[in-house]
Amino acid sequence: MIKVSVMYPHKPNARFDHAYYRDKHMPLVKARLGAACRFYTVDKGLAGGSPGDAPTYVAMCHIHCDSVEAFQAAFAPHAKEILGDIPNYTDLAPVMQVSEVVVGQA
Amino acid sequence: MIKVSVMYPHKPNARFDHAYYRDKHMPLVKARLGAACRFYTVDKGLAGGSPGDAPTYVAMCHIHCDSVEAFQAAFAPHAKEILGDIPNYTDLAPVMQVSEVVVGQA
Repeated sequence: MIKVSVMYPHKPNARFDHAYYRDKHMPLVKARLGAACRFYTVDKGLAGGSPGDAPTYVAMCHIHCDSVEAFQAAFAPHAKEILGDIPNYTDLAPVMQVSEVVVGQA
Repeated sequence: MIKVSVMYPHKPNARFDHAYYRDKHMPLVKARLGAACRFYTVDKGLAGGSPGDAPTYVAMCHIHCDSVEAFQAAFAPHAKEILGDIPNYTDLAPVMQVSEVVVGQA
């Protein structure tokens, strides 16, 4: 299993609509990826390593797929629509990373 | 539910022993946190947003707890031992973040 993590770096005064992200954007991603997306999780950044520190990322999602190829094949046909939805909830540019799931939730 | 994410920024030529991290360090963290750690997940960074890009993080773990307070109360008595184990698998300094789990694995 791999996960595609999409991470939105915290910036002061940036815009991020967590409700839209949870209720509209991520369900759109799931609908378009179909069965290639086994499941996804969504995080809302609360704090950094010390109390009062801003989180590194204001939000993250982690899209779990069987393989990088499975993700890419499912994402590519819908990339324009999915990426085009980003301005509807944020003016931040996300950072992406692909990881192997070494230990998953039981 | 909250998650404490511990993220190890990729650096060329840095040392990271993924086997030790999976087999020794994270089980130590779980043993010391006890029931306060509901579960944890571990990622190994494979790639960045474009093929051939290095991942932002060479490894990450996500420790799931009922609350920030539950994590802190369980972690504090063992912080020295847990943090002292880091040099056994890496020379990288991790970045920490606390997030609210907005959408978790079903």
